[in-house]
Amino acid sequence: MTASKLDIGRETTLCMSVSARPSNFGTRFHNHLYAALGLDYVYKAFGVQDIAGVVAGIRALGIRGCAVSMPFKEAVIPLLDELDPSAAAIGSVNTIVNTGGHLRAYNTDYTAIQLLIGRHALNPAARVVLCGSGGMGRAVASALRDAGFTRGVIVARNEGAGRDLAERCGWDWQPGTPDVHGGDLLVNVTPIGMAGGAEEHDLAFTPEQIARAGTVFDVVALPSETPLIVEARRQGKPVVTGLEVVALQALEQFVLYTGVRPTDEQVAAAVGFART
Amino acid sequence: MTASKLDIGRETTLCMSVSARPSNFGTRFHNHLYAALGLDYVYKAFGVQDIAGVVAGIRALGIRGCAVSMPFKEAVIPLLDELDPSAAAIGSVNTIVNTGGHLRAYNTDYTAIQLLIGRHALNPAARVVLCGSGGMGRAVASALRDAGFTRGVIVARNEGAGRDLAERCGWDWQPGTPDVHGGDLLVNVTPIGMAGGAEEHDLAFTPEQIARAGTVFDVVALPSETPLIVEARRQGKPVVTGLEVVALQALEQFVLYTGVRPTDEQVAAAVGFART
Repeated sequence: MTASKLDIGRETTLCMSVSARPSNFGTRFHNHLYAALGLDYVYKAFGVQDIAGVVAGIRALGIRGCAVSMPFKEAVIPLLDELDPSAAAIGSVNTIVNTGGHLRAYNTDYTAIQLLIGRHALNPAARVVLCGSGGMGRAVASALRDAGFTRGVIVARNEGAGRDLAERCGWDWQPGTPDVHGGDLLVNVTPIGMAGGAEEHDLAFTPEQIARAGTVFDVVALPSETPLIVEARRQGKPVVTGLEVVALQALEQFVLYTGVRPTDEQVAAAVGFART
Repeated sequence: MTASKLDIGRETTLCMSVSARPSNFGTRFHNHLYAALGLDYVYKAFGVQDIAGVVAGIRALGIRGCAVSMPFKEAVIPLLDELDPSAAAIGSVNTIVNTGGHLRAYNTDYTAIQLLIGRHALNPAARVVLCGSGGMGRAVASALRDAGFTRGVIVARNEGAGRDLAERCGWDWQPGTPDVHGGDLLVNVTPIGMAGGAEEHDLAFTPEQIARAGTVFDVVALPSETPLIVEARRQGKPVVTGLEVVALQALEQFVLYTGVRPTDEQVAAAVGFART
């Protein structure tokens, strides 16, 4: 495993991420896998404000891949050349792949959720109770709907976004406290439970609601053991964590950028490194 | 000395070079010094065509420094915010420094020549015989003129560029074979002697002309021991090599980008690494 900056040259391929407030997960995840697989790539996160300038830079510098985070996931769309179905399905982009100057946009959050539905054998007969209506909420709800979850309710204070997402899925919307039926799939796509947030120690669902749930799915990744996940595990409920989403969507980006699919062991090592 | 790509993160500063045909010297030189000095920087060369897109990318991504090579040294000027006197003196930019979004342009070739004139104690009373009239020729001729070399002749087939440069310096122009007087400073700024070029094995000045010269200065850096330098050394003439120019201009870029001046030993180690 060679990973020296001293090996970087004019042929080295640059990939990157752009966000108003970048994390280090992607940089560490991708660079670890490049090193493990001996790929002549280097990755770096950038904090940015001007997404049009970013896209001009991607084209001019021949940057191979770019992860796109808040608040650019919709604004970037008119600057690109083609939408993959994963991005078109939800009108939101989190990944740009540059092939010889042609920029194709993907949403690997959507792809990752689809894969996790299969991996966890989530049953489409369950009713979805999903808290949140932002960009990530749209990716999760759309992936569930497209996987055959025909019954659901969007719980969101924002009536416009909540109703819009519910309509898109053919589900219901309600503004406040969710009513949970036996066996529902509970999904949190709000910042509740996120480290450093105002609701860091709160639960998006009460212990009583969790008790009635089938599976509990929390998209919050920092920490991945949110109060919601901790309580669900305590009750013996099956869980899907935000870390699984983050790692799997990053892996799908890696495959798009390099054309190489690492082994499960290599991915696990990269996730372990990226979390530290 | 740590130099791992695995240390790269969102705070890591990116510097780069852009050129139609990039070399690896700068990438290896800068990354070696970053590692030796423990600086959280990374450097990469890019082959590019769209200089406006490059500058948009520099601004949007907050790229700290950018070396500019052929054929963008003049075209880039209207895209920048301010010209340092080193660039204004010759209307040619080889270095962009981005300080909080403000792009200031330098020409470290010009600066390096000025420093080499002092380091080699070149005597301004000598007459300059300079072959070539391109961008680098302008940097060298202007630095010599500004250091007090009042007598000179530009030898160039291109009459427009040759006469223009001669006028700028208050020197003469002639199209063909240079007449060399005793003690002249001979300068080659053409591709003659460059590895892989059509005139790889040729001399810009004949052995008889070299015999009459004071000092011989060849700007060709690949190889640094050009046929011209080899012949001049054989005759016991003092020489200035293109490698000295390349290394010193890169060092001045390094200082502009990082604010740190490495020791002579660190620079020598980086040059040795970058040449391999």
